[in-house]
Amino acid sequence: MKQSQLFTKTQKFAPKDEKSKNAQLLIRAGYIHKEMAGAYSLLPLGIRAVENIKQIVREEMNTMGASELIMTGIQRKELWDSTGRWDDSVVDVWFKSELKNGSEVGFGWSHEEPIGDMMKSHITSFRDLPIHVYQFQTKLRNEMRAKSGIMRGREFVMKDMYSFSRNQDQHDRFYNNCIEAYKRVFDRLGVGDDTFVTFAAGGAFTEFSHEFQTVCEAGEDVIYINREKNIAINEEVLNDKTLESLGVAREDLEEVRTAETGNIFNFGTEKGESLGLYYTDDQGDKVPVWMGSYGIGITRLLGVLVEKFADEKGVVLPHGVAPFAVHLISIGQDRKAQEIYGALTKTGVDVLFDDRDIRPGEKFADSDLIGIPTRVVVSEKSLATGGVEVKKRTQEEVRVMPLDEFYEEINNHQG
Amino acid sequence: MKQSQLFTKTQKFAPKDEKSKNAQLLIRAGYIHKEMAGAYSLLPLGIRAVENIKQIVREEMNTMGASELIMTGIQRKELWDSTGRWDDSVVDVWFKSELKNGSEVGFGWSHEEPIGDMMKSHITSFRDLPIHVYQFQTKLRNEMRAKSGIMRGREFVMKDMYSFSRNQDQHDRFYNNCIEAYKRVFDRLGVGDDTFVTFAAGGAFTEFSHEFQTVCEAGEDVIYINREKNIAINEEVLNDKTLESLGVAREDLEEVRTAETGNIFNFGTEKGESLGLYYTDDQGDKVPVWMGSYGIGITRLLGVLVEKFADEKGVVLPHGVAPFAVHLISIGQDRKAQEIYGALTKTGVDVLFDDRDIRPGEKFADSDLIGIPTRVVVSEKSLATGGVEVKKRTQEEVRVMPLDEFYEEINNHQG
Repeated sequence: MKQSQLFTKTQKFAPKDEKSKNAQLLIRAGYIHKEMAGAYSLLPLGIRAVENIKQIVREEMNTMGASELIMTGIQRKELWDSTGRWDDSVVDVWFKSELKNGSEVGFGWSHEEPIGDMMKSHITSFRDLPIHVYQFQTKLRNEMRAKSGIMRGREFVMKDMYSFSRNQDQHDRFYNNCIEAYKRVFDRLGVGDDTFVTFAAGGAFTEFSHEFQTVCEAGEDVIYINREKNIAINEEVLNDKTLESLGVAREDLEEVRTAETGNIFNFGTEKGESLGLYYTDDQGDKVPVWMGSYGIGITRLLGVLVEKFADEKGVVLPHGVAPFAVHLISIGQDRKAQEIYGALTKTGVDVLFDDRDIRPGEKFADSDLIGIPTRVVVSEKSLATGGVEVKKRTQEEVRVMPLDEFYEEINNHQG
Repeated sequence: MKQSQLFTKTQKFAPKDEKSKNAQLLIRAGYIHKEMAGAYSLLPLGIRAVENIKQIVREEMNTMGASELIMTGIQRKELWDSTGRWDDSVVDVWFKSELKNGSEVGFGWSHEEPIGDMMKSHITSFRDLPIHVYQFQTKLRNEMRAKSGIMRGREFVMKDMYSFSRNQDQHDRFYNNCIEAYKRVFDRLGVGDDTFVTFAAGGAFTEFSHEFQTVCEAGEDVIYINREKNIAINEEVLNDKTLESLGVAREDLEEVRTAETGNIFNFGTEKGESLGLYYTDDQGDKVPVWMGSYGIGITRLLGVLVEKFADEKGVVLPHGVAPFAVHLISIGQDRKAQEIYGALTKTGVDVLFDDRDIRPGEKFADSDLIGIPTRVVVSEKSLATGGVEVKKRTQEEVRVMPLDEFYEEINNHQG
C-alpha cells in the first residue's frame, strides 16, 4: 500500500482522556480511533493487525478440527432466563434494549447459552459428537470502568470456541489439545515464553479453570508462578488448599502482573443440563452433553503486544502481526522505490511504501511510530553505497545491502 | 472439508414461524440458524458463502482505491444529536441502551455520523482529499416487522463505503466509478443482467439517489424499467416531473418487483457542514467536505441469490459464492474418493467430501439441498465406466469423465 493512500495521519499527542499506553500509541500511529471510553474503531492499520492475529488463531483452531461460524449479537431474554443469567444482579455487564413490541433483548457479552441452545437442532445421537465450533465475535460488555485502552473494552473482538462431547474422556482430550493449540498461538504471537497456563477460579463443575496469563505491567491480574515447576496460580485461588494440591510452597512462588489473554472452562454436564442439551448414547439412554468454552481476547492481545514491545519511539509489533512486513521509504528516489515496491508486492510481501513528499525525518519518525518490523530506505546515498539501507525496528544497526540480497532475505523470512 | 466433520444436519422442515423461502431453505440446508425474527446466526456453510460475497465486494472496493476499516457498533448520543438523528421520531430503528453512569448509547444502524466525525482527526487540508473508506459492519436495526428472512434483518451485514472529496468534480468522479464497480460486483454474483441502477428518493442535497435494484419476487420494492433506454425508476419517485426529466413515457415502462441490494447517496456538503467537517482549500479558505455513502447489503444478497436461483430441490448458488466449488460423493469407494479429495484440495479447490456412511439417496438429496455448483460421484459403476460422474447443480445431464479430464476442467474453471 502506498502511504499517500493511507488517510490516517500520525499524531504527536493522544487524546487527553486516554490514560493507557496501548491506546495512546495506537491512536497516535493511526491504528485505532477512540469512539468513547472502551470503544475503539479499527482504522486500516488496526484492522490489518487484528486480522493477522485472527488468522493465526483461525489456523490453529482449524488444525484442531474446529469449524468457524458466527452467532448473532442480539440475544433473547427467555434463553438467558432459562439458565438464570439474564438478571443484572447475576450478570452486571449486559447491554439491554427493547424490540418495538416491548420485548426485551440483550447484546451478546458471551455466547454460551445461544450456542448450546442452537446445538439442540443438530445433536441427537452419540454419533453426532464430538463437535467443536468457534467464532470471532464482537462482544459488548457494559463495563463500569474502561480505562485500559483496547485491553478492556465495552466493545471488543473475542475468539470463543465451544466443545460438545459425549463424556469426560472425549471432553478432556479436546480440552488438553486446546491447551497445546493455545500455546502455539502465543508462540506465534511472540509471547509464548511470557504466557502461563494458570490455575484460576472454576465454576459449579470444576474446582479450577485454566487461564492464559501473559506477563504485562499494564495487566489487571496478579499471578504467582514457579518457573522451575512450570506452575502458575491466579491470586484469586492462592490458598493453602491450592498450594497443597499442586505441591508447591508459597515461598517458592514469584508474583507477576499479567493480562488474561485466554481462558478455558469446563462446564461438565452442568450447562447442557440447564439448557436441555441431551443426546442418546449407545445404550439408548438420554444423557447430557459435556460442554467446554475456550476464549482468546483478540483485540486485547493487540493491546498486550503494544504494551510489551513498544519503546519510546512508538509501536513495535512482531512479524506476522504488524500490518505490513516492510516499510519502504523513498528519499528522493521515487522511480527506484516504485520498482522495489513492485518487485516486493509481486512476490507477496506486504509493503507500506512511503511515497509522500515530506522531509526524511518525518518519514523516519512515522515509521518508528507505526512499528513495521523491517524498514528499507532507498536514497541517493544508499544507491551510491550499493543498494538499500535495511533496519529492523527492534535493532539499532543499519545494513546497506544489494537489492538481490535484500529480496532473498525478505522472501526467505516470508516463507 | 469432510462432511462427517460438518456438524449441521440438513432438515426436512423449516421452523413453522419462518415464512420466507430464503430462510426456510438456508435453515434446512444448514447455512443459518434462526435466533429470533430478523436475527440469524451464520453456520459453517453460511459464513463461507457470506465471506465469499464479502471477498468479491472487497476486491472491487480495493480496486477503486478504497481502504477497509471497521467502526464501533456502539454509538454516542451527543454525536447523533448534533445532526438531529438521535430522536426516535426522526430515526425509528434505533436500538438504545445505557452505560452504568446513566448516559445513553445507541447501536449502529448507520455509520455516516461517526465516520464523518472521525475524519475531523485526519482531514485538514485539500491535500488530504479525496479519501475513500469502507467496512463490513454488522448493523442493528429495530425493525417493526422482520419477515423476509435474511433479506431484512434486525441484525445484518452491510458493506458501507464513504467518500470525502474536495468538490463536486472530485465527488462525481468517485460516485460514477462506484456505479461501475457495483456493476462488476453484481456481474460476478450472477445477477448483473437483473440488477438496475434506479432513480430513487434523494436527500436534502440531491433530487435523486441511486439504488441498485435486483429483480426478485420476494423483494419489497417496485420499480419501473425501460430496458431499451436502460432507465429504472423507483415507484416512490415515479411522477410526471421525473418522467419528463428522464425523457421517458409512463406507458413505455415495465413494472417489476425488486430487492434493493445496493444504494449510493450524495450528501454534497450538507453532512460535512452538520458535522463540522471542513478543510482548508488551496486559497486558504475553510470549506465543507463533500461526502457520499455507498452501501451493499451483504447478507441480504445471499437471501436474494437463494430466492432467485433455488429450485424445488433446494439452494442453488453461483460458483464463487457457494461455500464449496465441488461436492464429492463417495458411494462405497472411500479410498478412491479420499484420493480425489486430496488431489483437488492440493490444487486449491474447495471441496465438500461426503464421507458419511449413509444411503446414496440421502447423499444426493443433501447435495441438492445444499446447492454446491458441481457434484462429483465416485462409485463402482462410475469407475467401471471410466471415471467419475459429474453433474452441475443447474443441469440434469450427468457426464462420466476420466479423472484427468475432470481435474483439468475444474482447475480451468477455478482460474
